[in-house]
Amino acid sequence: MTPQLVTTIAELRSLLDRHRAAGRSIGFVPTMGFLHDGHGSLMRAADHDNDIVVVSIFVNPLQFAPDEDLASYPRDLDHDREVARSNGVDLLFVPAVEEMYPQGEVLTSVSVAELSARWDGASRPTHFTGVATVVSKLFNIVGTCRAYFGRKDVQQLAIIRRMVADLSIPVEVVGCPIIREHDGLAMSSRNIYLSAEDRAAAVVLRRALDAGEQALYAGERDPAAVAKVMTDVVAAEPRARIDYVAVVDPLTLATPDRIGAETQLLIAAFLGQTRLIDNAAVRTRPESS
Amino acid sequence: MTPQLVTTIAELRSLLDRHRAAGRSIGFVPTMGFLHDGHGSLMRAADHDNDIVVVSIFVNPLQFAPDEDLASYPRDLDHDREVARSNGVDLLFVPAVEEMYPQGEVLTSVSVAELSARWDGASRPTHFTGVATVVSKLFNIVGTCRAYFGRKDVQQLAIIRRMVADLSIPVEVVGCPIIREHDGLAMSSRNIYLSAEDRAAAVVLRRALDAGEQALYAGERDPAAVAKVMTDVVAAEPRARIDYVAVVDPLTLATPDRIGAETQLLIAAFLGQTRLIDNAAVRTRPESS
Repeated sequence: MTPQLVTTIAELRSLLDRHRAAGRSIGFVPTMGFLHDGHGSLMRAADHDNDIVVVSIFVNPLQFAPDEDLASYPRDLDHDREVARSNGVDLLFVPAVEEMYPQGEVLTSVSVAELSARWDGASRPTHFTGVATVVSKLFNIVGTCRAYFGRKDVQQLAIIRRMVADLSIPVEVVGCPIIREHDGLAMSSRNIYLSAEDRAAAVVLRRALDAGEQALYAGERDPAAVAKVMTDVVAAEPRARIDYVAVVDPLTLATPDRIGAETQLLIAAFLGQTRLIDNAAVRTRPESS
Repeated sequence: MTPQLVTTIAELRSLLDRHRAAGRSIGFVPTMGFLHDGHGSLMRAADHDNDIVVVSIFVNPLQFAPDEDLASYPRDLDHDREVARSNGVDLLFVPAVEEMYPQGEVLTSVSVAELSARWDGASRPTHFTGVATVVSKLFNIVGTCRAYFGRKDVQQLAIIRRMVADLSIPVEVVGCPIIREHDGLAMSSRNIYLSAEDRAAAVVLRRALDAGEQALYAGERDPAAVAKVMTDVVAAEPRARIDYVAVVDPLTLATPDRIGAETQLLIAAFLGQTRLIDNAAVRTRPESS
């Protein structure tokens, strides 16, 4: 069934209130559009768990710095509607910037200070405050729901989980696996920016994560040593330039002195002008059950 | 009827969800307790407009600076229950700090930057971020409702209104008149800190506002001249020490070059160690209808 296109906050609220009043559960997938199968996997998870699935498409100006790619961020609503249709989406919420920010200037900001300062936040200082602000607004609009986020943006996921807990937002946050191309590159709307050569070289992010994971499995417990293994893989690819490589605790995203049972490997690198991120969650001890 | 005492977020949500499912409207009055008739007036307004009235009592650590009066802030739950009972309150939500902030540290903050920096925010730099954070959390807990705030804390009211608009919080914010003692002193839980002499001298805040208002009615349109009239009144009271006097636009809280049709007079002053605030909204032109 073709999803219903909704462009105003009032109409979305009224539709969702009616569904909730009828006892139907709501699954919500916030996106910036230009949907790929990573988004598709979130929609399928939302469709599996809930009666009604709403997907938002909003390229949020707050999370772009002035020198970033807001104006050129890829858009294709026809294709997005098709991805939504084929993944069981009921409502497609596509508000204009004026609908979301009618007063123009947004004076209010939501931020999760400590989790936002490092890694992607160090490279993009205002980014996560923009994300947390718009996601909390979208949660207020959608209301009680399950919300689906990809683990590819794992720092974003940690920030949103913490925001939801700290502010008692009535949303259950569900983190979903990273969806990859056949050669291992994590799906991203920004992959379209890559030249053919950079696209081929971009698999180096996944290869670096694999090397870090293998070092952990081999018993390495020093975060700096694991990071060096990863860095060396990227350094061997002349088209890639490292932004950061990190070996961190999954909850705090801080680098531990010594690696524990669960570790999050993070990597960000430039291929040409395009900055890509990827990550892997690694459990270094067998699960006891 | 004695209001029902609720101490957990889960129980409050479950009670309010049942009321909403039955079609009952919710009025919400967030407080820090030690209730006086200023709070009573908010409860009566909430009771008049809604089917169910919930009052929260939570002395929020986030909005106190380390050198402020968090530990000594006055508390009297028995008296608060009586004020709630006699003003039609159905539910009294009194969470422990551990219930509101189970992780101890709150990493997430909500702030309305521009409106929070001046006046009370200049004297208390972290105060309004603490207020906006806890109020947005309380709104997430209570859910869709009308929420009642006194105009005595007019900067707080402006910040909450802006936060609700910017973040699309499903709450209707209602501002209620300042309730005063017989001699004109605005009711405040902190008035109990005043010595008998300071209590008598504290009427100077209201007298300064009256003088400013009269200057406006007499045609004065220069904000600095109106502020000077107010300052002179306070200066004549040796027990009072001015923190700030301001003549501002009601929405932006900024001082205009020239006074328009609506003006907000603000004053903060110390009597002994106790900081008191008061304000008056003045319409300088007759309403056209």
